[in-house]
Amino acid sequence: MNYRIILFLLGNILRVEAIFMLPAVLVSYAYQEWHMGNSFAVTILLLLTASLIGGRKHPEKIRFYAREGLVVVALVWVVVSLFGALPFYISGEIPHYVDALFEIVSGFTTTGASILINVEAMPHGLLYWRSFSHWLGGMGVLVFLLAILPMAKGTGYSMHIMRAESPGPQVGKLMPKMRQTATVLYSIYVGLTILQFILLVLGGMPLFDSVCTAFGTAGTGGFGVKNDSMAGYAPHLQWNVTIFMALFGINFNIFFLLILREFSKAFSNEELRAYLGLMIGAGALITMDILPLYGTVSHAMRDAFFQVSSVMTTTGFATADFNLWPEFSRTILVLLMVVGASAGSTGGGIKVARLLLLIKNARRGIQKVLSPRTIKLVRMDGATVEDDTINSLNIYMAVYCLILTISMLLISIDNFSLETNLTAVLACLNNIGPGLGNVGPTGNFSEFSVFSKLVLSLNMLIGRLEIFPMLILMFPSTWKN
Amino acid sequence: MNYRIILFLLGNILRVEAIFMLPAVLVSYAYQEWHMGNSFAVTILLLLTASLIGGRKHPEKIRFYAREGLVVVALVWVVVSLFGALPFYISGEIPHYVDALFEIVSGFTTTGASILINVEAMPHGLLYWRSFSHWLGGMGVLVFLLAILPMAKGTGYSMHIMRAESPGPQVGKLMPKMRQTATVLYSIYVGLTILQFILLVLGGMPLFDSVCTAFGTAGTGGFGVKNDSMAGYAPHLQWNVTIFMALFGINFNIFFLLILREFSKAFSNEELRAYLGLMIGAGALITMDILPLYGTVSHAMRDAFFQVSSVMTTTGFATADFNLWPEFSRTILVLLMVVGASAGSTGGGIKVARLLLLIKNARRGIQKVLSPRTIKLVRMDGATVEDDTINSLNIYMAVYCLILTISMLLISIDNFSLETNLTAVLACLNNIGPGLGNVGPTGNFSEFSVFSKLVLSLNMLIGRLEIFPMLILMFPSTWKN
Repeated sequence: MNYRIILFLLGNILRVEAIFMLPAVLVSYAYQEWHMGNSFAVTILLLLTASLIGGRKHPEKIRFYAREGLVVVALVWVVVSLFGALPFYISGEIPHYVDALFEIVSGFTTTGASILINVEAMPHGLLYWRSFSHWLGGMGVLVFLLAILPMAKGTGYSMHIMRAESPGPQVGKLMPKMRQTATVLYSIYVGLTILQFILLVLGGMPLFDSVCTAFGTAGTGGFGVKNDSMAGYAPHLQWNVTIFMALFGINFNIFFLLILREFSKAFSNEELRAYLGLMIGAGALITMDILPLYGTVSHAMRDAFFQVSSVMTTTGFATADFNLWPEFSRTILVLLMVVGASAGSTGGGIKVARLLLLIKNARRGIQKVLSPRTIKLVRMDGATVEDDTINSLNIYMAVYCLILTISMLLISIDNFSLETNLTAVLACLNNIGPGLGNVGPTGNFSEFSVFSKLVLSLNMLIGRLEIFPMLILMFPSTWKN
Repeated sequence: MNYRIILFLLGNILRVEAIFMLPAVLVSYAYQEWHMGNSFAVTILLLLTASLIGGRKHPEKIRFYAREGLVVVALVWVVVSLFGALPFYISGEIPHYVDALFEIVSGFTTTGASILINVEAMPHGLLYWRSFSHWLGGMGVLVFLLAILPMAKGTGYSMHIMRAESPGPQVGKLMPKMRQTATVLYSIYVGLTILQFILLVLGGMPLFDSVCTAFGTAGTGGFGVKNDSMAGYAPHLQWNVTIFMALFGINFNIFFLLILREFSKAFSNEELRAYLGLMIGAGALITMDILPLYGTVSHAMRDAFFQVSSVMTTTGFATADFNLWPEFSRTILVLLMVVGASAGSTGGGIKVARLLLLIKNARRGIQKVLSPRTIKLVRMDGATVEDDTINSLNIYMAVYCLILTISMLLISIDNFSLETNLTAVLACLNNIGPGLGNVGPTGNFSEFSVFSKLVLSLNMLIGRLEIFPMLILMFPSTWKN
């Protein structure tokens, strides 16, 4: 294990976090929330002090493999969260540190699960910081570092970091160099966020709400600034959010193809088709199912598609309490929670690409039984998928199920219902936010014990980093040389 | 597709079913339940008539591959169930045919889920037949045929049939010939059943109850003859059932090894150790969890271990309403429902062996990330597990999850709770019987719609035959030549 380089990267990240916390100080002082602004300022000082451990000079000895990539990503996310929670705690706005940690882990991991009961009573600076944490976490804090900081060339570790931090079964190399790829992805991300922000403001949403909503949508996070989430906004603003949530759940490579004008390649993408097909199918089924509860088709459709887009992209905004919908619609939403968004998007969940691969592999297996002599390959977008990729995927699924069941068992000690426990773990592990039962759109996570909150925080980190980085921290052999 | 031989085997099986229905006629008449006895007699005549379609002579043309094995097994189970439901329906004791079908599918698949509300009001003949169906289904009706009927030698289809009908990821060949293997397995099965029956009678259980309880335990079925299942029997009788359920959940190869006096080989079996470890661990945890609800440790322990043994072996007998237990205990039971019993036992579920393989494969995958250059193999009981076996297992798990979710969605139309729907599907797919919520130990499946009952019946068949035989019936390419 190359500790020197890990410390160097950690130090750099803490400095970046300090810089990113500056706007929160300004927002707090602008709204005359002095105690909040001071809390951010104190945290910035602590971050800058702590960042000194990394040293200023890039270590000369370069030994950086996949293992180091996974470890550094996991450690960075834990450390950034530990510091990110401090302003909530120091200001006294969230009196218990574990609650503050849960809230900021939920922010960075773009989950959107909250322990706050009355969001509207919170200072603007706090709300700004938690929404901004979605935006930072959506694309990945380390990928950002790769995009902006010039570091020793030819070290080859950028690939390992990007693989470990990016969502989805594989990372496409858009450009010859990973740093260029990171820059392209971040540009698309920034561009889409600004576009949504402008459209929200033009649509009549207040400026502060627009900023936070755009951050929450882009990161597919889901923290809102209103107690009723998005229910109080005008229908056209809700449709804006529905569409942008769906856009941020698409693989960013697709947008890159569109920029390059490779339209046919973009629209023939199998994951994109399945993603949109599932979304539209689910939206239509739920519209029909909830129609009797609603006066008009347009209202039913708006609420159905908003909730589908929100749950499937794992954002977690809400315009309706889907906890009260018929069981058929609730079940569709739970299944979409598991599926999640596209690989290479800011969304969480298992990802549509993985689901497609699982189904294709299963179909191949059944065909093999029927005609054992024909050799069938799993193909995706025209290319053959290697058996190693499929085995990795299967391992991913097995570990996912194992973590899901162990977490459910651990939080069941709090004695909430099976529905609450299952969907709470799903909502955290898939970075969605709300579940059903006590943690439904109108509920929150404040009732859980400190132990359960730590379990669920760990679930959020495991989910955001796609299991292995966090898991590997717990293996003793990781720490051997 | 070799239709001639499929029809021949179907015809033979219908004759066997007719013979096995004879005792039910005698039981009915002995209890002076004339309408019940007559219904059985009529069904026997229908069975014998229908059996003529197969012809009396063994077809000369032998082309019988894995595909034919899967299809014949699936068809036999469907047809045997369709006829087996007739006595319930003809006698008028179960007025709706779909209910009767649900009940007998539940019997043959050793599920034990019931639509009956008042079991004690039913005729003895009916109760005898549904318990006996557990016993028949436990070992597999076709394996029985292989064991007793002398058929054309060297046809090689016995292996395919046995593979398709036996539970677990692989079928060990105990003896050089499959027919001998089938005979050994059936002898162990019969021996253990008789032993339990004698112990129950000696322990003071009424004769009729003892017969039915032994059938239900041996097949890991769970149909009882009392409305309170096993709660009303003396503690030592409950312990008898606890222990025999656990025994019938063990791979029968272990008993064969014991008969051969290969004790160290038997007790070092990895699945056996994991199975007993899980059972004892879960029993101990639940005992501690429910202790405050119970007066004494002995009572808590008795109920905890009975329920654990019942759920894990997928039997479904109950001595307590675990629906009312704390959520921690309920969650443990739900997880055990998924795991199920050992491969090569009469129990259902995913099976402990599969779980072990999944965990071993996941561990290998993580080790590969940590040190990519070392080649690791998955080993089980000292032997290397081939990658093909692991891929089949992964396909099995993927299809299992897919069927689980689709079934949940389909029955959610009835608008019961998520807990009820999830555990109802789990209880049927894993051949357990009771779930939680409305289908808990004191509830039953009668409230579901006709459509949901058919979906759940299909789930029971899919679960008993381990997915692929039933699935393959639905593939159009199966029926091409």
